Amino acid sequence: MRSPVNSKLKIAVIGAGYWGPNLARNFSASPDWELVAICDLDATRAQALADRVGGAPAVFTDLDELLAQVELDAVAVATPARTHNGVVMAALRAGKHVLVEKPLADTHDRGVAMVQEAAARGLTLMADHTYCYTPAVLKIRELIAEGALGDLLFIDSVRINLGLVQPDVDVFWDLAPHDLSIIDFIIPGGLRPTAVSAHGADPLGSGKACIGYLTVPLAGDAIAHVHVNWLSPTKIRRMVIGGTLRTLVWDDLNPQQRLSIYDRGVDLTQQTVDGVDRAASTVSYRLGDTWSPALPETEALGVMAAEFAASIRDNRPARTDGEAGLRVLAVLEAASRSLVISGAMAEVDTAPVPADSPSVTPFEEARR
Amino acid sequence: MRSPVNSKLKIAVIGAGYWGPNLARNFSASPDWELVAICDLDATRAQALADRVGGAPAVFTDLDELLAQVELDAVAVATPARTHNGVVMAALRAGKHVLVEKPLADTHDRGVAMVQEAAARGLTLMADHTYCYTPAVLKIRELIAEGALGDLLFIDSVRINLGLVQPDVDVFWDLAPHDLSIIDFIIPGGLRPTAVSAHGADPLGSGKACIGYLTVPLAGDAIAHVHVNWLSPTKIRRMVIGGTLRTLVWDDLNPQQRLSIYDRGVDLTQQTVDGVDRAASTVSYRLGDTWSPALPETEALGVMAAEFAASIRDNRPARTDGEAGLRVLAVLEAASRSLVISGAMAEVDTAPVPADSPSVTPFEEARR
Amino acid sequence: MRSPVNSKLKIAVIGAGYWGPNLARNFSASPDWELVAICDLDATRAQALADRVGGAPAVFTDLDELLAQVELDAVAVATPARTHNGVVMAALRAGKHVLVEKPLADTHDRGVAMVQEAAARGLTLMADHTYCYTPAVLKIRELIAEGALGDLLFIDSVRINLGLVQPDVDVFWDLAPHDLSIIDFIIPGGLRPTAVSAHGADPLGSGKACIGYLTVPLAGDAIAHVHVNWLSPTKIRRMVIGGTLRTLVWDDLNPQQRLSIYDRGVDLTQQTVDGVDRAASTVSYRLGDTWSPALPETEALGVMAAEFAASIRDNRPARTDGEAGLRVLAVLEAASRSLVISGAMAEVDTAPVPADSPSVTPFEEARR
Amino acid sequence: MRSPVNSKLKIAVIGAGYWGPNLARNFSASPDWELVAICDLDATRAQALADRVGGAPAVFTDLDELLAQVELDAVAVATPARTHNGVVMAALRAGKHVLVEKPLADTHDRGVAMVQEAAARGLTLMADHTYCYTPAVLKIRELIAEGALGDLLFIDSVRINLGLVQPDVDVFWDLAPHDLSIIDFIIPGGLRPTAVSAHGADPLGSGKACIGYLTVPLAGDAIAHVHVNWLSPTKIRRMVIGGTLRTLVWDDLNPQQRLSIYDRGVDLTQQTVDGVDRAASTVSYRLGDTWSPALPETEALGVMAAEFAASIRDNRPARTDGEAGLRVLAVLEAASRSLVISGAMAEVDTAPVPADSPSVTPFEEARR
Repeated sequence: MRSPVNSKLKIAVIGAGYWGPNLARNFSASPDWELVAICDLDATRAQALADRVGGAPAVFTDLDELLAQVELDAVAVATPARTHNGVVMAALRAGKHVLVEKPLADTHDRGVAMVQEAAARGLTLMADHTYCYTPAVLKIRELIAEGALGDLLFIDSVRINLGLVQPDVDVFWDLAPHDLSIIDFIIPGGLRPTAVSAHGADPLGSGKACIGYLTVPLAGDAIAHVHVNWLSPTKIRRMVIGGTLRTLVWDDLNPQQRLSIYDRGVDLTQQTVDGVDRAASTVSYRLGDTWSPALPETEALGVMAAEFAASIRDNRPARTDGEAGLRVLAVLEAASRSLVISGAMAEVDTAPVPADSPSVTPFEEARR
Repeated sequence: MRSPVNSKLKIAVIGAGYWGPNLARNFSASPDWELVAICDLDATRAQALADRVGGAPAVFTDLDELLAQVELDAVAVATPARTHNGVVMAALRAGKHVLVEKPLADTHDRGVAMVQEAAARGLTLMADHTYCYTPAVLKIRELIAEGALGDLLFIDSVRINLGLVQPDVDVFWDLAPHDLSIIDFIIPGGLRPTAVSAHGADPLGSGKACIGYLTVPLAGDAIAHVHVNWLSPTKIRRMVIGGTLRTLVWDDLNPQQRLSIYDRGVDLTQQTVDGVDRAASTVSYRLGDTWSPALPETEALGVMAAEFAASIRDNRPARTDGEAGLRVLAVLEAASRSLVISGAMAEVDTAPVPADSPSVTPFEEARR
Repeated sequence: MRSPVNSKLKIAVIGAGYWGPNLARNFSASPDWELVAICDLDATRAQALADRVGGAPAVFTDLDELLAQVELDAVAVATPARTHNGVVMAALRAGKHVLVEKPLADTHDRGVAMVQEAAARGLTLMADHTYCYTPAVLKIRELIAEGALGDLLFIDSVRINLGLVQPDVDVFWDLAPHDLSIIDFIIPGGLRPTAVSAHGADPLGSGKACIGYLTVPLAGDAIAHVHVNWLSPTKIRRMVIGGTLRTLVWDDLNPQQRLSIYDRGVDLTQQTVDGVDRAASTVSYRLGDTWSPALPETEALGVMAAEFAASIRDNRPARTDGEAGLRVLAVLEAASRSLVISGAMAEVDTAPVPADSPSVTPFEEARR
Repeated sequence: MRSPVNSKLKIAVIGAGYWGPNLARNFSASPDWELVAICDLDATRAQALADRVGGAPAVFTDLDELLAQVELDAVAVATPARTHNGVVMAALRAGKHVLVEKPLADTHDRGVAMVQEAAARGLTLMADHTYCYTPAVLKIRELIAEGALGDLLFIDSVRINLGLVQPDVDVFWDLAPHDLSIIDFIIPGGLRPTAVSAHGADPLGSGKACIGYLTVPLAGDAIAHVHVNWLSPTKIRRMVIGGTLRTLVWDDLNPQQRLSIYDRGVDLTQQTVDGVDRAASTVSYRLGDTWSPALPETEALGVMAAEFAASIRDNRPARTDGEAGLRVLAVLEAASRSLVISGAMAEVDTAPVPADSPSVTPFEEARR
């Protein structure tokens, strides 16, 4: 049963490691939420987090106990990606709405199962695509939606830094979910390529790609490209979004001017010469003004917590719902397949997700 | 016959369009050279250039007349790429040393013919890879050669701007010769990949790629990647060169700090656990100082003019000789082939260049 | 009686407004300190802070009660500047060591009284010149001390932003204590000008200077200059320190390269012409490398807390002791006097501080 | 007699040193001008310049000969500042219009004599305040004039670099004419302070200030401040112009975004409390968008050559006329006087320039 609008929704945070504390802090501070429990296999870590956030949430080390004993509307899952399916399926079956850290699951199939389960039960499954709730990305989405950039020509995203080489995932699975979830969020209709190409390198011999380049064809002969890199001594987080009317540059490390919209570009005028449309057209340039919109200082996680609550109360999909998480997963899996075939295009799984009745999936079986 | 060392070498500049004036100005100012003639199909343009550079060079509109009538040691060719083979072959057959603007030729085969002709006649054929003679690139080459960076891990090059969409070549052939010739120059042994991958986009419908991404596997599981783009409203010319010891960033648009060498990186220590070498190794970070070497203010074209003279006088290959030009051509051609197969790896033609006797090639035949 | 070295020192934080929480958080996390109480006139604000920092410190709204009832080694004072004298004198008379937020007091005379009181009682009085404990400033001090810059030629400091126009102090008293305390910290012997000049402007008619320029002659004909500004739409925090050997630039808003040391400069060679030393000397330039030292990521307040503890345990002056606070105050007061006389030089009060016996000062009287 | 509008005006350039070649090149390329002669004490230098600019201007080493022998409308003077008076007075007496490099003269009195002479003879005397004709400064002037910034609050100008220590002038006279002429150009009514303050330092013992700070009170309690410095290893050329509505930042070394207009600021609302206007008003902030206008790529000297011609043909004062040059000189002289009195305010000579009849001035006498 849904909680009344004017009371707070009750939530538990599962996982008190790197990201869980950020979730706990924001749900704790949210007017929409009451943080009632924290769950982590490590009791000490869970308790330390509980002490820090105020409000004295209960502490659990066992998920089933938590779900059985505490009255909850929802859970927020910040455990390692390979455990997402198990944790989320258990929560859904217990009738809880779920917010889950990116990536949605460790495989597309497991993600599909989660989305189906949520749909069958009428529960919200939301992907924690945090960046989508930053003022910058919300503004980009709005500008594209209202046509300020015109038709999209290209998206070039660079996310490089001296990063922690992860023990279990390569640089694509570690960093590209950010870029892909953002691109999915800002382009009309979401990210739905039929095939992608990925090139990686592991020059240190770590056993997985530490440098990655991902090419994603977009509609209308446009292109998206993502460069992720754990080995760069300089930190860059920049996305350039070129359109027929204007081009937007998002430099996330420049707090004084995160977004710049350039009224510059190349215009191509098709000419008819001797009655024939010529491909070699007339090129002209626009060199107009640059504009940088002021952005509010709101914290993304707070906005996301509000969106999670609103999607539950209004019984509508969240802006970054499970399907968005699936689209990101599908591209990541295709990228992994492309790596194996030396960067040749690998098809993206775009099978529609049938809304089955809730059931025990093979993956769930394996978990027990 | 070679000119005596203490006299100036005589040179003619062929082509007075975009680049020719830069060549003319530098040869005119060089202590090694005497600019004796300028040749262009457009007599007015040739004369205007001749007036500007001083020294009253003769003006020609016909290459054969020039070669027949003027005493010359060498010619510098700045005509469109598709004419390089014809012009250069004529000059070589007339016994002149040749400097030719990048790319060496419009096809690898035609380039091979030129290199063979020069070799057979004992003449210098030099590629005008101008960037290689900038203080920044000379310093990078020196640092890599002396081991300051350690083993190469990756090279990431970005060269984007609001560029003139070229009527006859795509963005790869227009811009990537810069990046490729630089990479060829700085890595020990030159650029010799066996296959490359290229992804392009033509969202404006211009008939050729305006945005390009080029992936070049390097020795030791390292990787080079080049991003060229005519549609970017912001101008970036940056190359990051990662090594096991240090990483170098070359930002060509920051005159106050063009080169930065970061003593930072990721170290991977192979561990032997239970008698087994584990791929999952220990990762550690170095966060050391950054260093930016002072660079002289010398002009690249002046240095190149001196190198051209020295290679002739010392009867040795120029630092950017015809073979370097061929290596760049081979990668560009492979990139074009990769574009056709949606970015799958395309083999690079690395056939050795036999030193034939000088002869009339089929391409020369076609020109007549 | 001093606490034994191996036990934690007990401290109370006075003032739970803007800065107090930072002090509380750092003392709470320090291995040297136990945060035992928080005092603020606003009980709710004090309690909220106490809840947040953990460790359940006691809460007081009355300073005298706190000093009477709680066993304390020290207090940290983060109340408004005009109350510093009263609070600090009370704490010193109660035998507590004192850390006090900048500026030390609202007048130089009141600061002198505090320094005298502490000296007479053998207690540590430390100025919270936080910036001095940042990795950047500690490194600058070290570089100057070891002679890396040579003799100082100039210090130019800019600290501008869209700032909160303060109700009670002008922009000099609000912002310049940062610059002055840093300069005092890094130059050998501290900041001891005999006179300073200040120019201010109040174009909004706020009743006090919102834009300020401060000129401070240094030894050896060197000069320090500080620009503080509440009305700048762009934020700049940069200090340039020129020396005869090298010049250092500290850009506090560039986390990727906070410190740059330029091995560049102007050399002047005195010449003897016709037996006369000529002022018109030969000028030459050095254009050497730039170097940016890696800096640790330590938090300044943590380092400061450790220094406060060490100064108490070792019975030695803190690195930013009360006298340092006085030197800053003396310059600020002289700046205020200079403003009145349109920027003409105003003498700086540099009277030595006699170590009197502890006594009730007139200011203390007034407080009662 | 004025030349007909549709024919070119004839000009000679006096001085072929550092700046003369720039003038010669621009007048030579101008549709308004014919460069007919070049004059320099060094015949070789004059001839070398004449060879370079094309059009075969005559070469002179004697000014009187030039004026006597060549038919001229105007001269452009690029000789050392101390010779300006002599050269300009001779040219004016010979009936020539004059453009003169900044500063107008080496003293204000000599400048006044020049302005009077030109006025009495009905000739154009124009100051070569080149920066005023850059697209950036023209745009700033336009924005201020149309009220885009509101009322001016402050102007902060920084012009620092590793500069050539000049043999005869200090850093104020070398660099500040740029800043002062720009400020004079952009503020309505020009730069007319009644007093200024200057602080300088000569830590190298060169005999003159190498570092300078200049404070100029403006109307409405606003303030202008100029920082000039020969000893800075980093080059900065930035002017911030704060207004009640918006603030403009001009970063001349950022070609990608020279001008930024910030719609941010501090608003002060006067409040009436208990029937009394309170100085302590309500402060609020605007954090609006930033806007960067596109600027054309026109060369300043070309625009200036056109303005010089237009002022002659239309018989009107040039936009940077002799009076503008005088206002700059008056501030520079006052700055020198302020230096002598340790930065106390020195009055600026603002005596009006009476339009006398042409006559031999004492300075002219001395020259003979």
